[in-house]
Amino acid sequence: MQETDRFIQDNLARYLDEFAELVAIRSISTDPAYAGEVAEAAEWVSRRMTEAGLEAEIHHTEGHPLVVGRHHAGPDAPTLLVYAHYDVQPADPEEEWRSPPFQLTRDGDDLVARGAADDKAQVILQIAAAEAALQSGTLPVNLILLFEGEEEVGSVHLTPFVARNRESLATDHAVIADSMMFSRARPSLIFGMRGVAYVEIEATGAGRDLHSGQYGGAVPNPVHALARIIASFHDGTGRVAVPGFYDRVREVPAGLREAWRGLGYDEEAFRGSAGGASLTGEPGFATHERLWIRPCLDVNGIVGGYTGPGKKTVLPGRASAKVSCRLVPDQDPEEIIQLLKDHIARQAPEGVQLRVTGVQANPPFLAEPSGPLFDAASRALEEVYGVEPARVAHGGTLPIARDFAELLTPSVAVLGFALPGANMHAPNEWIPSSQVEKGIRSMVRLYAGLAAR
Amino acid sequence: MQETDRFIQDNLARYLDEFAELVAIRSISTDPAYAGEVAEAAEWVSRRMTEAGLEAEIHHTEGHPLVVGRHHAGPDAPTLLVYAHYDVQPADPEEEWRSPPFQLTRDGDDLVARGAADDKAQVILQIAAAEAALQSGTLPVNLILLFEGEEEVGSVHLTPFVARNRESLATDHAVIADSMMFSRARPSLIFGMRGVAYVEIEATGAGRDLHSGQYGGAVPNPVHALARIIASFHDGTGRVAVPGFYDRVREVPAGLREAWRGLGYDEEAFRGSAGGASLTGEPGFATHERLWIRPCLDVNGIVGGYTGPGKKTVLPGRASAKVSCRLVPDQDPEEIIQLLKDHIARQAPEGVQLRVTGVQANPPFLAEPSGPLFDAASRALEEVYGVEPARVAHGGTLPIARDFAELLTPSVAVLGFALPGANMHAPNEWIPSSQVEKGIRSMVRLYAGLAAR
Repeated sequence: MQETDRFIQDNLARYLDEFAELVAIRSISTDPAYAGEVAEAAEWVSRRMTEAGLEAEIHHTEGHPLVVGRHHAGPDAPTLLVYAHYDVQPADPEEEWRSPPFQLTRDGDDLVARGAADDKAQVILQIAAAEAALQSGTLPVNLILLFEGEEEVGSVHLTPFVARNRESLATDHAVIADSMMFSRARPSLIFGMRGVAYVEIEATGAGRDLHSGQYGGAVPNPVHALARIIASFHDGTGRVAVPGFYDRVREVPAGLREAWRGLGYDEEAFRGSAGGASLTGEPGFATHERLWIRPCLDVNGIVGGYTGPGKKTVLPGRASAKVSCRLVPDQDPEEIIQLLKDHIARQAPEGVQLRVTGVQANPPFLAEPSGPLFDAASRALEEVYGVEPARVAHGGTLPIARDFAELLTPSVAVLGFALPGANMHAPNEWIPSSQVEKGIRSMVRLYAGLAAR
Repeated sequence: MQETDRFIQDNLARYLDEFAELVAIRSISTDPAYAGEVAEAAEWVSRRMTEAGLEAEIHHTEGHPLVVGRHHAGPDAPTLLVYAHYDVQPADPEEEWRSPPFQLTRDGDDLVARGAADDKAQVILQIAAAEAALQSGTLPVNLILLFEGEEEVGSVHLTPFVARNRESLATDHAVIADSMMFSRARPSLIFGMRGVAYVEIEATGAGRDLHSGQYGGAVPNPVHALARIIASFHDGTGRVAVPGFYDRVREVPAGLREAWRGLGYDEEAFRGSAGGASLTGEPGFATHERLWIRPCLDVNGIVGGYTGPGKKTVLPGRASAKVSCRLVPDQDPEEIIQLLKDHIARQAPEGVQLRVTGVQANPPFLAEPSGPLFDAASRALEEVYGVEPARVAHGGTLPIARDFAELLTPSVAVLGFALPGANMHAPNEWIPSSQVEKGIRSMVRLYAGLAAR
């Protein structure tokens, strides 16, 4: 392992240069204008895998391509599949970035860019770990790197691909490399993640903007209707008020909640990462519980009428909102979308047409937080960070986690090296460069640990 | 009058060409990017007045310029001041226009363009009326044309200008040429218009967009707060629920309401002009009453979070809404803004900062609907249209009406030639070309009627 560590040390500057190259490719999967750059990022990843000594292949889909890299250690070696994604969120609002979003910019130890933490650092470090192990002569597992370009748009083509290729993707263990540590000092192994039910609501009144003096008071305003609907989503305490929303929420064992309280979740750090916002939410739960084991509903965006500079006295003809729920076991996203539709239909006011479209539906994920993968990962991380990783849940959603568990192996762990407050999906996203190095060192130890069993 | 009518007939095509020239100048007063074109429009108007035989002068302000045109008939002739404005609203949403917004496009008898009805046709026809009277030898009143370039941004510099120039603007009568007829067949004289109280609400949570999975459920969402505030503006029946809002609303005499019912307000035409929207509003009032004599509150625009194509799972850091009330006598706009601020402050949820900024405050206007001006205008319109004009109120706001009554003369009438459903402030604004001609003919008759007394 000393030789491998030396190799990592010697090549770290190059890995960071490669990180900057990948960041500069604006692989924004949600915006068709950037489809060419998503494809370019796939090419980049494939080329990089080949250079690292892996067999690489690009698999085209009707959306953005998948890239698969492989190393064959032999029929007796265990197989590990590592998932990451090379696509990113849009960079808006661009004016809030302190440096150009697609230029990896150093700020002390931190590296700032769109995709720095979510998920391009992990793409870089996973390939680097395979390379380091190979070049120093010790990649003792059959490795499958499965990197997609559609994570930020719901991984539409990944699951069908995995289902079609269960044989060639057959694996003993799967690591989802798209998450963050428990704290700056303490890594984590994540065994539960929330699901998503995402809808778009369109409210139409007159259908076009009218003069608010000539029509105001006599023609219904779709913004008012939309506001009443949004206001009806929560009760006064912060609980979601959509009937049936909590019906399938599984109670989390008191012992687990207690163990988690013992971790000392840093609320102040979390609050700081949220720009110092007040922490509020469902009564009866701590902040980490609200994130890990409780569902929620958020409006992600709303727009209607005149939103430019100055004033304009219009009565808006239409308005729309994007709304998503984060779900926990055993909530079913399709059922939640139906509950939302039913609830919204009951709020429909006179004279305003409502249309609700389901946009995304991903079930929550829950694995067994023990077994060879968790044990080997735990030892690897403890060796690098000097502390046992926390086994926790997480508020985000990785649709593929559940799909892997169903299609490939129940031995799935979510293991990532971003830090809390990394500004994923927000301006000034960052990851410490030291995390790239520690991530590489952790992964080569995980290979060894799995092979040693 | 025959000779004048012939002159109008002979020159109508030219007037419509001039109309197209003025429309092509994008004099959008609310957007600083168009300040140059607003100035250009002022130059155009001044030049046109001069060509028409008036003394014209541009008065610069700290905002957009005023243009004053004058004709001196003699010390014994009555003086008539006519107000119009040469600025326009923005053209957005541009994709909903069926023809380029700044190109006067003929559609049957209708002329379509931003500003066609509000208010460039009136600028054109008022200058043309003065020219026609002068060229055919009969402009028997002292005429002052006072045209501003800031009507769509609250006429900020007009009232101070009038106050500073009360002597040179001294007049017996004032006509506000910025309104519409009662119906296609029936002109109107307007003696009451609603005021405006306009505010902008900014709700700030984390201050920047956060990942809705990593923060959702634990950090307050400013869109939710804004929605609750907007939902609190009305009760379930459609009445405004801001405490104190109706306290100063003056009861309209039953006799006037009855007389208005006799006019046969065309609700279906109004509904058609509103894109077929349902007509809803305050209970106990007919549509024309909801517009003319009842106050209302409308959100003019709202925006927060991600509003682009596709989905983005963000928890918005801030959200804002533009909100305006239309006011009736004796509501006071500054008091209403304070009531709004107080009401909003009472809705402030934990963890969301609210800032409410007053943007515009214009009191309602109410004149005495009788006297020499109303009589002369009534006869002039009846001669051209074959029917006595309806003496009505109107839902829109013309701040200057009230200011003229206070600073210059109580003899103020609002008299315009746009038609109901003209799409003012909306895409595909239009005015029939025949209305330009009838407007010119009505105005030269009004001059004669005033002079004959």
